[in-house]
Amino acid sequence: MGIRILGTGLIKFGERWNEGVEGMAAQAVAEALAEAHLKIADIDLLLVGNMLLGRLEGRSQVGRLVGEALGFGGEAVAVEAACASGGVAVRQAMMAIKAGEAGRVLVVGVEKMTDVDMATITRTLMAAGGEDEQMTGATFAALYALMQQAYQEKYQVREADIDEMAVLAHKHGAENILAQFRRRVTVEEVKQSPLVAEPIRQLHCAPISDGAAAIILASSDLGLEARNRKGIQIIGSGQGGETLSLAKRKTITEIGATQRAMKRALIQAEVDVKEIDVIEVHDCFSVAGLIALEDLGFCGKGEAVQMIKSEDDWWINPSGGLKACGHPVGATGVKQVVEITRQLQGRCGLRQVRGAKIGLTHNVGGTGATVVVHILVKRT
Amino acid sequence: MGIRILGTGLIKFGERWNEGVEGMAAQAVAEALAEAHLKIADIDLLLVGNMLLGRLEGRSQVGRLVGEALGFGGEAVAVEAACASGGVAVRQAMMAIKAGEAGRVLVVGVEKMTDVDMATITRTLMAAGGEDEQMTGATFAALYALMQQAYQEKYQVREADIDEMAVLAHKHGAENILAQFRRRVTVEEVKQSPLVAEPIRQLHCAPISDGAAAIILASSDLGLEARNRKGIQIIGSGQGGETLSLAKRKTITEIGATQRAMKRALIQAEVDVKEIDVIEVHDCFSVAGLIALEDLGFCGKGEAVQMIKSEDDWWINPSGGLKACGHPVGATGVKQVVEITRQLQGRCGLRQVRGAKIGLTHNVGGTGATVVVHILVKRT
Repeated sequence: MGIRILGTGLIKFGERWNEGVEGMAAQAVAEALAEAHLKIADIDLLLVGNMLLGRLEGRSQVGRLVGEALGFGGEAVAVEAACASGGVAVRQAMMAIKAGEAGRVLVVGVEKMTDVDMATITRTLMAAGGEDEQMTGATFAALYALMQQAYQEKYQVREADIDEMAVLAHKHGAENILAQFRRRVTVEEVKQSPLVAEPIRQLHCAPISDGAAAIILASSDLGLEARNRKGIQIIGSGQGGETLSLAKRKTITEIGATQRAMKRALIQAEVDVKEIDVIEVHDCFSVAGLIALEDLGFCGKGEAVQMIKSEDDWWINPSGGLKACGHPVGATGVKQVVEITRQLQGRCGLRQVRGAKIGLTHNVGGTGATVVVHILVKRT
Repeated sequence: MGIRILGTGLIKFGERWNEGVEGMAAQAVAEALAEAHLKIADIDLLLVGNMLLGRLEGRSQVGRLVGEALGFGGEAVAVEAACASGGVAVRQAMMAIKAGEAGRVLVVGVEKMTDVDMATITRTLMAAGGEDEQMTGATFAALYALMQQAYQEKYQVREADIDEMAVLAHKHGAENILAQFRRRVTVEEVKQSPLVAEPIRQLHCAPISDGAAAIILASSDLGLEARNRKGIQIIGSGQGGETLSLAKRKTITEIGATQRAMKRALIQAEVDVKEIDVIEVHDCFSVAGLIALEDLGFCGKGEAVQMIKSEDDWWINPSGGLKACGHPVGATGVKQVVEITRQLQGRCGLRQVRGAKIGLTHNVGGTGATVVVHILVKRT
């Protein structure tokens, strides 16, 4: 059974100082409902992906909290899996529909990150790391720096090669009106940006962002009823797990959870990796995006840089990825599905991947402890 | 499709000063796996219900965190819905199985509450209330006190009548070796206990507890394969929503979310409320337990006290309920399913409800914003 996407909503990611979670969620949801020609009363179940409300604003029952902001009185569920919260929410929504427990499901990914000082947000994000990693005082930039060092050494990749992934992100983000950063950068600019955790520089890092994204899912039958003529469906879904901390893994130059999630999604979708036309991968740091391309099977290990340099790269993170489009952590996994849906619908203007029929999203929690992959198709 | 319960695990609730979330979860899971004749590697998906780890211990990706403590490397999802976190986890697990996304699902409810001072835990629990309620400085005892005042007035119920629910809980808890409090109390003792928030007294309140509970669910087919001869199944599930804050509701003498969750669970289970033999209701405060009996349809509004006084009451909260068995918030919804399963299996010794064939669990978040009901049956 395919899961039909009836509507999508997305607000521009960035520093939205005057807005909170409730208002941002409401804007994204209003757009998704309008696209689907639905009212909030038509929704059976609300899934919310959010990481930080509990920690930063002292709130729980976040499903109901967001529901109330939307005027939704029904069943609401919040899931938390760090930066993969949005992807997990999409996957749980899909399960509810497949289970016959809900007809139309609204998925909201939302995060407010800019209301606190950098030290607090950095420490709070580290909640998603291993306890050993937290105790060392490591940041996520430091952890990904370890991965980048190992990756560069193992595959003889130069730092300038890693920079290419940031250049790609900014090139694409420049064409996305909803992106946080809308300017191109050069390899030279990346190289000149300040070191955050050697060898990771500022322009390798996804930013701190506020934002919200929403999608409305339904079973295939309900989708037709709702007059969604474009016919975008989620046909494959997979989730994988890995240890929280890097030290416990056999290797840190690949992420097993990505490989396992991808394998499962491909089997469910009955598609081959070669058939995929457009993807959004989790480039929280540039090296993470490169490793993801390899773990997802788009190229061999150590070959990602060569791939993005040697061909038209618009099919990779056309939104600008986490790097340029922004990374409000709980929203990212849902935003990826919004972007791929709109790509398959042919609505993406200058960043449109022409003729895209099959797309993929790849959402990661922590340094890869949780990974969710979804495969979408355009049914015509 | 029924969801088969392959195994149950439960540790004694109480002040477990030397133990953390990981160790408690591991103990409950070891018992559940042993009962199911399974190894952790046989599990496809882990659902975790937990409220406080993020706030009190600064941890996120709690699904993977608990998974790692169990030696489980696969897909893990954490849900949070305050004191209904456990019930929501059970319901999401059921959906995953019905969706065909997982064969065997392990559900863990776990909470560590005693490592912090009372002011901190009280404030942290209030994260589940409305923002307006949080700002007044109200505690959950204060909110339920408003409900009790309105309830007593509307139905001309005396305070001594409310006390009967606490007496019932302690009578049952006295026979449960896993209960936090194992002594009977009298109406006089309840009346003499200190006021917490008028008219709620200490002996009306569920305690602060540490604890963990686990169940293993599977589709009916897998259950047979796993040699669970007792054949306990979840045949009905429902979840309802209500506003976070009391001030926004039409009435505070009933909880609409309970009524809606129950209606849905009954329809799915195809059973009548009169057929239910044994129940675990969410008596976080004594008045909450009484209101729940009415909203679930076991008696008319205002009649709960009369019902529990006039008949054999062992079918109501045989575990001792939240009041006497203890209330580690994220664990409670899972523990309720453990108790009802064991009741239907005839394993409950002095507190056994004889001949029980159909049972029910009722799990509440906050003052009723989230309610989950499950109906279990013994298939022979």
